[in-house]
Amino acid sequence: MDASEFRKRGKEVIDAIADYYEGLDQTPPLSTVDPGYLYKMMPREAPEDPESFDAIQTDIRTKIMPGMTHWQSGNFFAWFPCSSSYPGILGDLYSSMFNIVGFNWVCSPAATELETIVMDWLGKLIGLDKRFVAIKEDGTEGKGGGVIQGTASEAHIVVMIAAREMALERIKARGASDADAKALQSKLVAYFSDQTHSSGQKAANVIGCITRTVETGSDLRLTKPALQAAIAEDKAAGLIPFFVCGTYGTTNTTAIDDLPGIADVAEAEQIWNHVDAAYAGAALTCPEFRPLAAGSERADSFNFNAHKWMMTNFDCSALWVADSTHLINALSIHREYFPPTEGSTTFVKNYRDWQLPLGRRFRALKLWFVMRTYGASGIRAHIREHVRQAKWLEQQLLVDGRFDIVAPVVFGLVVFRIKPHIIAQNGDYSADRVNEANADLVAQINGDGRVFLVGTELKGTKVVRAAIGSSFGAQSNVELLLSVVQQCASKVIAGTE
Amino acid sequence: MDASEFRKRGKEVIDAIADYYEGLDQTPPLSTVDPGYLYKMMPREAPEDPESFDAIQTDIRTKIMPGMTHWQSGNFFAWFPCSSSYPGILGDLYSSMFNIVGFNWVCSPAATELETIVMDWLGKLIGLDKRFVAIKEDGTEGKGGGVIQGTASEAHIVVMIAAREMALERIKARGASDADAKALQSKLVAYFSDQTHSSGQKAANVIGCITRTVETGSDLRLTKPALQAAIAEDKAAGLIPFFVCGTYGTTNTTAIDDLPGIADVAEAEQIWNHVDAAYAGAALTCPEFRPLAAGSERADSFNFNAHKWMMTNFDCSALWVADSTHLINALSIHREYFPPTEGSTTFVKNYRDWQLPLGRRFRALKLWFVMRTYGASGIRAHIREHVRQAKWLEQQLLVDGRFDIVAPVVFGLVVFRIKPHIIAQNGDYSADRVNEANADLVAQINGDGRVFLVGTELKGTKVVRAAIGSSFGAQSNVELLLSVVQQCASKVIAGTE
Repeated sequence: MDASEFRKRGKEVIDAIADYYEGLDQTPPLSTVDPGYLYKMMPREAPEDPESFDAIQTDIRTKIMPGMTHWQSGNFFAWFPCSSSYPGILGDLYSSMFNIVGFNWVCSPAATELETIVMDWLGKLIGLDKRFVAIKEDGTEGKGGGVIQGTASEAHIVVMIAAREMALERIKARGASDADAKALQSKLVAYFSDQTHSSGQKAANVIGCITRTVETGSDLRLTKPALQAAIAEDKAAGLIPFFVCGTYGTTNTTAIDDLPGIADVAEAEQIWNHVDAAYAGAALTCPEFRPLAAGSERADSFNFNAHKWMMTNFDCSALWVADSTHLINALSIHREYFPPTEGSTTFVKNYRDWQLPLGRRFRALKLWFVMRTYGASGIRAHIREHVRQAKWLEQQLLVDGRFDIVAPVVFGLVVFRIKPHIIAQNGDYSADRVNEANADLVAQINGDGRVFLVGTELKGTKVVRAAIGSSFGAQSNVELLLSVVQQCASKVIAGTE
Repeated sequence: MDASEFRKRGKEVIDAIADYYEGLDQTPPLSTVDPGYLYKMMPREAPEDPESFDAIQTDIRTKIMPGMTHWQSGNFFAWFPCSSSYPGILGDLYSSMFNIVGFNWVCSPAATELETIVMDWLGKLIGLDKRFVAIKEDGTEGKGGGVIQGTASEAHIVVMIAAREMALERIKARGASDADAKALQSKLVAYFSDQTHSSGQKAANVIGCITRTVETGSDLRLTKPALQAAIAEDKAAGLIPFFVCGTYGTTNTTAIDDLPGIADVAEAEQIWNHVDAAYAGAALTCPEFRPLAAGSERADSFNFNAHKWMMTNFDCSALWVADSTHLINALSIHREYFPPTEGSTTFVKNYRDWQLPLGRRFRALKLWFVMRTYGASGIRAHIREHVRQAKWLEQQLLVDGRFDIVAPVVFGLVVFRIKPHIIAQNGDYSADRVNEANADLVAQINGDGRVFLVGTELKGTKVVRAAIGSSFGAQSNVELLLSVVQQCASKVIAGTE
């Protein structure tokens, strides 16, 4: 494919993208193919000779499309949104054009510097504490700063490595040898709640530390007394607490942990305090959501995914640390083929030392495109409209009378179930019966095919989750969701009678 | 930006990309801005109100372009290539359109299944042993399989986690408790050579194990006796060897470790044997390079970056394991919001359990586009042309008479220096003097600005590296490189007289 064919084909793809988004409402959001469907249609080996782009485009339509679950559909309400946008796509397209490996400043100064700048922009946009900013108001270097990670999972691993480094440094400062400190690694404990995202446990598996899952109460929040008790018990057993993760907006219900209480404990115990705001962090662009994040200004690190609810195409996970020292100490490695660049570290950041991989794409571009194309006002309007739709859905479900709203609707997530007494009209109020019916409701909704969502389980109670947040969704999609939920609930209820 | 504006702007970007590639030869490959250049030109906060795409496009030209180091330029010879291509860009563009988070099969069956299929295609294309294939000839499931990672660094971390799991399982099988096994983690040792890529040490830092750097000889290869001796010494000291990395094409010189010897040791010691072919793996598409990879068929894992020398846009790092059991055991985490899919695990792969992050882009598309657009024959021609150019450059440098070729030219890398006796015409043959002159040669070449490369240091000897492999490069670019090298060498030599 030469430049002239690329001009032609590229423009066809641009039109195909606009057509795709314009047609999303007419496409079932969930793929219904059977496992192995694609294998049956595909050759067993790469072709020996070149194929035409026509053949590829045909296959996109006939082989790939049927197997897609359409995350950008306004009728996709599963998990959390992964929101695309036109400027996000174009930012990524420029990134594909440059196709750099930006492991240090000289690899492309623009990539490093734009990342520092837009992460400061984004930090200010969500009202993050000044401790997290890379370049202070007077143009001098802050101790902290932001960096774009691929995902919240990577962010979790990175901050746990920094936390381990901090803990081992402290142990060594008390006189332990390097070998003794290393041996103590196996006693390090990370604290999560039973609602923390799986990325916490996975990060612990990666670095090989012990995890302690602290039980939450009925509000599904990690609290100070529960954390204190767990730490006291572990210390008494000779273990070494080194890390705690509080969540601003959990996956199951968007619960918000007791962030000030967690900060109290983290400061008293000198352990690393990470705030995972992967989904709900985007809401902090609106000042009205900031009081709920009180306490996060005292954290050591803060993370949210601009690719979830802020229209910046996947992957763009924004991580800030208040002090990059431990991170860089833990992850920095010199090799003779990495030429050093002279100049102030204010601007000459080697982001390879802030992340797991060496290589990195120019991801700051899409974030820059999104913030400029929508402006702060446009991003706030985007968030507020989804919250409004979620509250509308909550209201309608309450008005219907057959549903419990299981958790407060704060952001774009509505968690509900059919009320036990509605299901148990024949007298069987057992939890199992109620759970079965609500699991059946999820299956019926997804079987209907017009919308897609997932259920979850809260301490044994099966519930339905509807996450609103598609960039290409509208009130009409939520109305459709309501209508499907109501129809399917009627069927489920009728089936139990 | 609505669909109609996207159609217009997207097509402008497509033309801008074609223009960019067509103009690369007229652009100095290395940016010469000063640190902080961009900060001076940029606002301190995100705009409150939307900005036009015109303003963004203008800033790409005036603010971003001057700060780019152009990795796609035919005159970029630094590190290793990170090769873009038109079909690679279009594959990534479709991936941006779908913008899925493919953590399990149902998230988009097409994304999971296409990855399984194209990784099998790619494995066959490079002649990988059948042990690494996911779906056998008869359509049944293999024990191993391929997965696309972001980078070779991530692949390194992932396989070391699997290796640790394997080692700890073995320790537990001998009767150790979970706690005892955990405590023994601090005694695990990973083996690298002094030429292994930094990603090995970084992965060890991440998982928190001990590393042992085995010294190479004058050919810069990791050998069986050296590895055996290191392991024997560590075992005698009570340590537990668990992982070794052999390299097919090191970063400094593209040296190839004694892969059969390493396999002997790994099998005898029951430790995980990883082959890092990050750069040179692409050459295995050509059968003539396969004898050099003998021994890799006995490895536990094999990795190469299709984004380096195989025209698949960054990021696309291909990792295969011969047995996915330990990987999945170490990285699999269940949560109630991950609905299981029934169906054969031959096709229903949860690739989230094969990698560090939960989320993942639909990266198989670009690999599929590249393999189909060029065909196996086109990819082989691409590799062979670069090897031909490298050998041509080697020949010219030898004919010139002033240069030593420091390492065998096997792939696209030429490592050379000005001969000591040429530099030391005034009688100063000291290694420092020779090193200074060769470091000066690198500085002069990059100062000239027409081409960009980096130097490195081989056991104290400073040398110049020229890596040929740009998708947009041609013989004329290598001729320019030769001419710049010769001119700069003349200046350096004149300066020493």
